[in-house]
Amino acid sequence: MSLLVTNIGELVTNDPDTGVLLDAAVVLDGERIVWAGPRLSAPDADERLDAGGGAVIPGFVDSHAHLVFAGDRAGEFEARMNGEPYTGGGIRTTVAATRAAGDDELLAGARRLVLEARRQGTTTVEIKSGYGLSVEDEARSLRIARQLTDETTFLGAHVVPAEYADDPDGYVALVSGPMLEAVTPYAKWIDVFCDRGAFDGDQAREVLTAGVKAGLMPRVHANQLVAGPGVRLAVELGAASADHCTHLSDADVAALAGSETVATLLPGAEFSTRSPYPDARRLLDAGVTVALATDCNPGSSYTSSMPFCLALAVREMRMTPAEALWAATAGGARALRRDDIGVVRAGARGDLVVLDAPSYLHLAYRPGVPLIKTVLHDGVPQ
Amino acid sequence: MSLLVTNIGELVTNDPDTGVLLDAAVVLDGERIVWAGPRLSAPDADERLDAGGGAVIPGFVDSHAHLVFAGDRAGEFEARMNGEPYTGGGIRTTVAATRAAGDDELLAGARRLVLEARRQGTTTVEIKSGYGLSVEDEARSLRIARQLTDETTFLGAHVVPAEYADDPDGYVALVSGPMLEAVTPYAKWIDVFCDRGAFDGDQAREVLTAGVKAGLMPRVHANQLVAGPGVRLAVELGAASADHCTHLSDADVAALAGSETVATLLPGAEFSTRSPYPDARRLLDAGVTVALATDCNPGSSYTSSMPFCLALAVREMRMTPAEALWAATAGGARALRRDDIGVVRAGARGDLVVLDAPSYLHLAYRPGVPLIKTVLHDGVPQ
Ligand SMILES: [Zn+2]
Ligand SMILES: [Zn+2]
Repeated sequence: MSLLVTNIGELVTNDPDTGVLLDAAVVLDGERIVWAGPRLSAPDADERLDAGGGAVIPGFVDSHAHLVFAGDRAGEFEARMNGEPYTGGGIRTTVAATRAAGDDELLAGARRLVLEARRQGTTTVEIKSGYGLSVEDEARSLRIARQLTDETTFLGAHVVPAEYADDPDGYVALVSGPMLEAVTPYAKWIDVFCDRGAFDGDQAREVLTAGVKAGLMPRVHANQLVAGPGVRLAVELGAASADHCTHLSDADVAALAGSETVATLLPGAEFSTRSPYPDARRLLDAGVTVALATDCNPGSSYTSSMPFCLALAVREMRMTPAEALWAATAGGARALRRDDIGVVRAGARGDLVVLDAPSYLHLAYRPGVPLIKTVLHDGVPQ
Repeated sequence: MSLLVTNIGELVTNDPDTGVLLDAAVVLDGERIVWAGPRLSAPDADERLDAGGGAVIPGFVDSHAHLVFAGDRAGEFEARMNGEPYTGGGIRTTVAATRAAGDDELLAGARRLVLEARRQGTTTVEIKSGYGLSVEDEARSLRIARQLTDETTFLGAHVVPAEYADDPDGYVALVSGPMLEAVTPYAKWIDVFCDRGAFDGDQAREVLTAGVKAGLMPRVHANQLVAGPGVRLAVELGAASADHCTHLSDADVAALAGSETVATLLPGAEFSTRSPYPDARRLLDAGVTVALATDCNPGSSYTSSMPFCLALAVREMRMTPAEALWAATAGGARALRRDDIGVVRAGARGDLVVLDAPSYLHLAYRPGVPLIKTVLHDGVPQ
């Protein structure tokens, strides 16, 4: 069945050949876009979707989210906001709750967040493990994640769990060996939290290299807390993305600029931990490809809202509204090495968002306001 | 018809005698709350509303909004975010569009924003004029506002319109005389933008005094851009609220602390103009009553989202989540001199919000996420 999306206020294609179109239309057939261009030349279709003068944009691509967990940490958040320092030890709270939860509970919680994100315009979401931290619990986390997305990421190297506190290298060996083997059927990506208090450069290299050997593709939590080795390791290994990038040396920026590695910025984390934001302009001005994602997780960034992250990127990181929208759609697609999402052109997936606003500018201009009118996911109105 | 709200995750009453209750219930009869307390002692009712384990809070009271206007200023916002300085001259753009618009268009636009706000939990909204700036256009703006709320505010003294650029005192005389007379049937409050580039202390005093003489109650846009005379004038005249309070002297803080005048903070404006935030802690620590509101307007703060403003208040102004929720509900009620809203107790209006979250903490903990599940307005589920 084909569908003509018409009465579009403004169409953001992210296609360099077409750009932003007024008086545009889009035609979908099944789960794909088959045509996008000027309304008057649009082919006919079986059905019509009236955008009511609202802008149409590609669905958001949230390339960094931690959605398989149990419990929440509202109390820890409250304490932090009321002035206590952030320690990061809180991840172990979620690990304990996650291990204690049944599969059904974990799946229901992750599904709830995926649907919540979709109502806010997210049509692709990456989901990481990282709250199991045992062979069994990482494998089931990824089995659950795989029921919700193709973009699954093994993050056994999130933190060293309590039972390995005295033997971090033993844990790295576990992650790189039996745990990796157990998760490989369910994971597409491998990730390491390479930062102060987590894993150092050598440990991260060991895990990522093992993952690549097992057929997974690398991405790295890098340089969130200090200007450590994460970003350069990501570039060296050809990672799709280095995520956070809050503390960067000039060499880090140069390495990113000379690579295919995307810098994925996660301003929700800085918002919710009251930390300084990454310098997006420095990256953009150096020619680095920048993506935006939510980092949705119960500790440091419990938002599923890509529009919120986009508004923060404009306000706090001085991205232009156009740069921020691109980063939240096409940028996320690059960070997942995908060319079939984050763009409106024939052949791309039918992932579109109709806004309750005439222009995409309203996503930053009207912060916090739910402006998502209709979401098309794989060609299907949600 | 009576209604029992049950299965409440946490009930925030804002009533000092009851505080935050677990295992609570609320009973409404018609448009009023008739009972709030422990679930097991709840009286019976004709119908039930299952809160599904979500927290229940008083409806938000947005005590500062400019909703009667035509057009938007997305282009001005984009230019500002891309690095051009904010001049404030943009208000005249909206004045021209508003004057050119028909009554139906203005009413439809304002109603759209009221309903958008209500979906985000706002059950009381103050609406100001201030984009007409002629006798006829201010009167019709307030006639339209009055169709949507009882809390209408005459803001003829928003800026000096272009046609009075060479005669600001003539404009003050117009506002204080014929314009005031024309709007009095529709206005409850009188307000002045007393700041750099708008009206000075003497002009503001003239307008506010005339308004009070005509039976309106005063409130003041004060100290947004500079530490001018606005706050002290508000206190001197017994205004219900001094709004913005971004730049304050010690004398301003002391004056507020010794008064019944609420300091209404509008962090959406600082967010959208990339300006420094007011120092909420200084005010709270001095004993000033603080409210939060959106300042919803097409120039400097085009958000209708009280949850967004609450999250900003916590992150940027170091209010605790509890202080921020109080300020966004009971604080707004104080700023409107109302004791029948912003509170859950017998006799209060039936304005309640059920959250899609077990605790009110999630409003700040989950920024940008639409967490409003059900809104009861005057006892009616929306
Ligand atoms: Zn992360
Ligand atoms: Zn205002």
